[in-house]
Parts: sequence; C-alpha cells; structure tokens
Amino acid sequence: MPPPDPSRRNEHSRRAILEAALALVGELGYDNVSVEAIAKRAGCGKQTIYRWWPSKGAVVLEAAIQSLNPVVVFPDTGDMVTDLREQLVGIVDLIATTSFGAAYRGVIAAGQSDPDLLQAVFEQVIEPNIKGFTARAALAKQRGEIRPDADVATLRDVLYGVIEYRLFHDMPLEPQHIDALLTLTFDGVR
Amino acid sequence: MPPPDPSRRNEHSRRAILEAALALVGELGYDNVSVEAIAKRAGCGKQTIYRWWPSKGAVVLEAAIQSLNPVVVFPDTGDMVTDLREQLVGIVDLIATTSFGAAYRGVIAAGQSDPDLLQAVFEQVIEPNIKGFTARAALAKQRGEIRPDADVATLRDVLYGVIEYRLFHDMPLEPQHIDALLTLTFDGVR
Repeated sequence: MPPPDPSRRNEHSRRAILEAALALVGELGYDNVSVEAIAKRAGCGKQTIYRWWPSKGAVVLEAAIQSLNPVVVFPDTGDMVTDLREQLVGIVDLIATTSFGAAYRGVIAAGQSDPDLLQAVFEQVIEPNIKGFTARAALAKQRGEIRPDADVATLRDVLYGVIEYRLFHDMPLEPQHIDALLTLTFDGVR
Repeated sequence: MPPPDPSRRNEHSRRAILEAALALVGELGYDNVSVEAIAKRAGCGKQTIYRWWPSKGAVVLEAAIQSLNPVVVFPDTGDMVTDLREQLVGIVDLIATTSFGAAYRGVIAAGQSDPDLLQAVFEQVIEPNIKGFTARAALAKQRGEIRPDADVATLRDVLYGVIEYRLFHDMPLEPQHIDALLTLTFDGVR
C-alpha cells in the first residue's frame, strides 16, 4: 500500500472546513459561530484552521466565494441583457436557497472593523468581478449591445451594488428586481 | 428663581449623548465604543442612555440620522438631475468630512446580527427616503423631467445602493461617482 498522500489529506480537510463554516453560519448566524465550532464540525483541530486562514472571517469568505464562483461566470450568448439576467438571477437564487447570503452578510459586517478582511473581499470578490464584467462589456461594445460610450464601471457598481444594498437591508430580493434593474440601467429614466 | 425645567434638562442630555456617540465612533471606530464610554463623555450615567435607547446601535443610529437629515432634503429647482446631484454630493461630503460614515457603517454591520436595529434603520432612514424621493419623482413625471413610465423605486435603490456599496467596501466615493451614476441612470447604456 502506498503511503497516504499529504496533499490529498489536506485537500480533504480544507473542503471539510469550508463546508462546516458555511453550514454553521447558515444554522447559527455568523456572530454565533467560532473557529472552534468550525474545527469541531470539520473533525480537525483549531490550529489546522489557523494554519490556512488568518481569521474566522477569512474562512467564511472563502466558503462563500466557493459557492459564489460557479454562479458569477459571464456567459456570452451575444445579448448582454440576457447574459447579465442569467448571472444576476443566479446570485439571487444562491442567496434565497443557500447559506451564501448569511455568510456574505457576516463577512461584510465583520469587514467594517477588519480592514484586512475587507481588503480580501476586494481582491477575491470585487476585482475578479470587475475583470470579468469589463471583458464581457468590451465585447458588448464591439457588437453594439451597449453604446460605445457606456460607463461600464458605473454599470457594474449599480448592478452588484443594488443586490448588496437589498441584502444588507433585508429587503426582498427576487428575479423581478433584477429585471427592473436591467431595464433601468439599459434604458434610463429620461 | 423658577424651578429647573426637566424637559429642557432632558433635551440637553440627549444632545450631549448623541454628540458624544458620534464623536467617539469617529475617534475609536464603532466596535471600540461602549455605552459606558458614551455616558462618561456625555457626563451622564449609563442608565440615562438605556432609558431612551435600547442599545448602542440605536444611539449611534439616532446620532447618524441627526447629521444626515439636513442633507437628505429633496430640493425642487425644476430639474431633477440638478436636485439629486446636490443631495447626493451632500451625502458624499458628509461621509468625507464627518463621522457619519463611520457611524452608519457600524450600525449596518451591527444590524446584520440585530434585526431590531436593521428594522430601525429601515423605518428611520429608508422609509422617509422612499417617501421624499417618490414625492419629488412624481413632480418630475408631471413636468417631463423623467419618463412617465420611469421606475422610481428602482432608481432610488440604485442611487442610494451604490453609495452604500462603495462605502461598505471602502471604495473611493467622490462627486464624480455621483455624476457618473446620474448620467447612467438617466440616459441608460443602450
């Protein structure tokens, strides 16, 4: 029998920790979950978690990103409104049906007094989103799906900003809000 | 000499407490301020604060609202973009030059695990804003400043949502962002 592969064992532990973090935040709320509780649920020691992550916020952030990543892809069917609708409704569904929303709310709340955590959110959530959005919007400009002078950075701020706004204020967040947002930003109110 | 007027004494204490709360949050950050510290700075007892407010979050929220209220009026010069620009740049300036932003960030962060506080934010910040915005937008529709079918609720979400988004993510927030936001929402990207 070959010796156990340590990288495989590590991968197994990491996955168990991230799953435990997301599940516990969903069950108890971010503030009521400790690193100890995550370790216990994952069947490892607290020191294993601190070997890989600097804080509870960092673990929960990675767990949240892992569930967000498959949803925030930027499809390209040739129609930017259709593509954005699919992605944004995917985010709304993720919030409605998983612990992602609870985890993200907890991380952003903790980030208001933890600049390192807020910086990690920027680097791991916002920056990749800016990159993907900007690339998709560049194609959309080439093809006339949006105006050549359309302000892509502000459009991105608006779309994800409103989702976070409604999430943090516990306001309803449904596909109809995405439709309204896309109509407003694409057609304007004037 | 007439006896001291208790309502005047109360008014003096309330004002001292709200000023102390806002100043301390600006100096130390929301998480590092206690009700005891606010009471000490205001020259009253902790029990005086708890007689009027249920929690630290509620005191800081009232202090934040008191500094926000003079800024979130809805002027009517006959041009909605000009009027919104004035108000929104006023909010941006308030964040840049006072402790309002630190206080509001702290309250929203605390609100993620305190439903009563989040409800108070909704009733004392969001609802009055919806009311004022809707009234100003109704005038704008009558006069053709915006389209008769413009989605006023979504426009409001977008404008204040983006300000909060940039604030909570510690992204720069300057008058140029307000101009970009108004251009995008009034003209659309298509």
